[in-house]
Amino acid sequence: MASPTPNSEQKMQSVVSLCRRRAFIFQSSEIYGGLNGCWDYGPLGVELKWNIKQAWWRDMVMSRDDVVGVDCSILMNPRTWEASGHVQSFTDPMVDCTKCKGRFRADQISNNQCPSCGTKNSFTETRQFNLMFKTYVGAVEDNSSQTYLRPETCQGIFANFANIVSTSRVKVPFGIAQIGKAFRNEINPRNFIFRSREFEQMEMEFFVRPEPQEAEKWFEYWKTFRYDWYLKHGISKERLHLRIHEPSELAHYAAGCADIEYDFPFGRSELEGVANRTDYDLKKHSEFSKKDLSYFDAETQKRYFPYVIEPSAGVDRALLAFLCDAYTEEPERVVLKFHPKIAPVKVAIFPLVNKDGMPDLAEKIYKELKHRWNCFYDDKGAVGRRYRRQDEAGTPFCVTVDGESTASYTVTIRERDSMLQERVAIDQIQTYVAKRLEGA
Amino acid sequence: MASPTPNSEQKMQSVVSLCRRRAFIFQSSEIYGGLNGCWDYGPLGVELKWNIKQAWWRDMVMSRDDVVGVDCSILMNPRTWEASGHVQSFTDPMVDCTKCKGRFRADQISNNQCPSCGTKNSFTETRQFNLMFKTYVGAVEDNSSQTYLRPETCQGIFANFANIVSTSRVKVPFGIAQIGKAFRNEINPRNFIFRSREFEQMEMEFFVRPEPQEAEKWFEYWKTFRYDWYLKHGISKERLHLRIHEPSELAHYAAGCADIEYDFPFGRSELEGVANRTDYDLKKHSEFSKKDLSYFDAETQKRYFPYVIEPSAGVDRALLAFLCDAYTEEPERVVLKFHPKIAPVKVAIFPLVNKDGMPDLAEKIYKELKHRWNCFYDDKGAVGRRYRRQDEAGTPFCVTVDGESTASYTVTIRERDSMLQERVAIDQIQTYVAKRLEGA
Repeated sequence: MASPTPNSEQKMQSVVSLCRRRAFIFQSSEIYGGLNGCWDYGPLGVELKWNIKQAWWRDMVMSRDDVVGVDCSILMNPRTWEASGHVQSFTDPMVDCTKCKGRFRADQISNNQCPSCGTKNSFTETRQFNLMFKTYVGAVEDNSSQTYLRPETCQGIFANFANIVSTSRVKVPFGIAQIGKAFRNEINPRNFIFRSREFEQMEMEFFVRPEPQEAEKWFEYWKTFRYDWYLKHGISKERLHLRIHEPSELAHYAAGCADIEYDFPFGRSELEGVANRTDYDLKKHSEFSKKDLSYFDAETQKRYFPYVIEPSAGVDRALLAFLCDAYTEEPERVVLKFHPKIAPVKVAIFPLVNKDGMPDLAEKIYKELKHRWNCFYDDKGAVGRRYRRQDEAGTPFCVTVDGESTASYTVTIRERDSMLQERVAIDQIQTYVAKRLEGA
Repeated sequence: MASPTPNSEQKMQSVVSLCRRRAFIFQSSEIYGGLNGCWDYGPLGVELKWNIKQAWWRDMVMSRDDVVGVDCSILMNPRTWEASGHVQSFTDPMVDCTKCKGRFRADQISNNQCPSCGTKNSFTETRQFNLMFKTYVGAVEDNSSQTYLRPETCQGIFANFANIVSTSRVKVPFGIAQIGKAFRNEINPRNFIFRSREFEQMEMEFFVRPEPQEAEKWFEYWKTFRYDWYLKHGISKERLHLRIHEPSELAHYAAGCADIEYDFPFGRSELEGVANRTDYDLKKHSEFSKKDLSYFDAETQKRYFPYVIEPSAGVDRALLAFLCDAYTEEPERVVLKFHPKIAPVKVAIFPLVNKDGMPDLAEKIYKELKHRWNCFYDDKGAVGRRYRRQDEAGTPFCVTVDGESTASYTVTIRERDSMLQERVAIDQIQTYVAKRLEGA
């Protein structure tokens, strides 16, 4: 991870502060002091998040012939997490201070000194601490009723593999996609919404013939497709990087992995991983469930366990990258230069002043546009301040009804980034905006 | 609840069986024997659920000026649940059998006999069992780190009330809406996805002046609006009922409540509740958090705790109602007569046979349509069987490229419910379908 500079620390603070001030993101249950690692999305944040998820779903599922979607439960039969290896291995090494009872990550202790009370050589032996959140299902709390909040969404896909194959007419190569929440009891949540305890994933498991060349071909395909997806939605190329893992870095189930990384203000960090998970998962679940999860290939007349190529993205991380990338300080303003597709509000409509029929006309235009796009009506204060307010929300277009409007039946449309205004006929507003929003 | 008839029991079984066969709904982690009260949505189910949530969001948030959205975390500071009363009172009375150690709901024991081992008078005293799922956040498992999976989404809205008011320019009367998962450790999950342990809510808290008439006016408004919402999306009027609660039925925080009920095959049951929650929640959270959650009304120059009118719907219950209502057995077929807005697939495209240029033309049409709608391409088997397959998925339109198509540049479009076919020019397909889908 590249070190953040003082300048970028300041940028991070500015982004966090804007997020709170403009209702993108709040601390969860803030009135009670919050809950470390949990965040709430406010009115602008929830629209931004929704747009990111829709863009992903449209590009990964709806517009493709070879991918179907699922939506699995967060609570699953706990055997799932034995098969996946999480019960055994999804752990951090921890030590307790015998003096102050504090608990710390063993690999973050220096000089064998307690970071809390300062005592030296006071630690217990290292124990493995599982990062899954535990809970109990049913009326009795014992081992038989214990399960976990899923730490990743993909296992729901593997568990449903045979169901999908037998009901949905899919044929290898094909994918199963899911968007949903996952939970990890991180010891040290940090960097705003980047590393949180509750987060949302967008994962797709793409099943291919278990041949090295075939797997390699699709790994290359998805690596490029996913990298390009961020560019397509406005992330700057100079801040977006593909990093191929060294063999020594690979998870035990993976034959190859590429991280899509972004230069966040706090350093270069993983936005998404594209991994070749081989046939590890389906074989493990077959073994633990005693159900045959192999696939019969009608074309080759062979039965096999497909290999899996997995592009796994974090919704919150993508959202943070879009926010940081869009955040721009100019001499006169702060502006979020969101790609129009993901901007929470598409069009703002203003009457220049609240008289001479301008509010009536502006409201009429607003009512028409909002059936099609998320719009905002604002008639408070100087128009310059209203533009600035929309700049901070990342709204691509501001439509202003002015003194000429009622006579000439025209408005001005101001574009966010260039701040240029064009005069457009009222019956052409939809076409004008649609061309720039949807053609973008 | 009206008693189900044998006929309706059969209908329920048919719906459940169709859901599994056509990949609407599977048991969660079924390969491991499932997890009682948890369900997964398959390829058709996830699209249906997504459409229902989008329809709600569009009608409750996006197309309105007086409602904003949020998306809060499932894990919250546990003080939230002390303030809301859930830690104290969200309980079922339970007894243990001292003989077999089974645990049962006290109010479901008859003759003081254990339903499991048959022993009489073997029960412990009644204890209150809390229905919230517990978990521990952070490295230490003790009371200070214990929290809960939210049993309802609305408390995240109340906790954010002051944040939204100070950042989002809302003015009473206004609403805050949220869609998200909630969890209840039901002792007896039942009726398919109707009463499950993990479910999704669509809730909106609408804040009004604390005057009885004002609250009553908005209560009436939302009761009617929400009832009409189900009708608008295709639920049969004769199966949809509004039931006003008797004063004796009301929750301690409510001054009035109306249930929107649906005649499910298993009986008449609650689909949504519309409640007048008074100022109970904001006052409780003010008291417990020591933060002032009152609202300053610029118009009346008064500070007050608004009253809250809450329409609270279950996504899964709505989905089940849409499924049951759409489910129709006709002599020759089973058909899901979904309203076009919520149908998972909008258009299916078939080449009548796989020759004479029909597949090329059909694929071309498919590729154009699928940019706009969720479409399905099918070239397998007799066209009659393909129609039946789409009937079971609830697809409103089937476009067939036949022998005339390449010469006359026309197709047939078959409407699902009437099964009537019309011949339509290929360049008119989009207009034809759009008019019926979006004008509907």
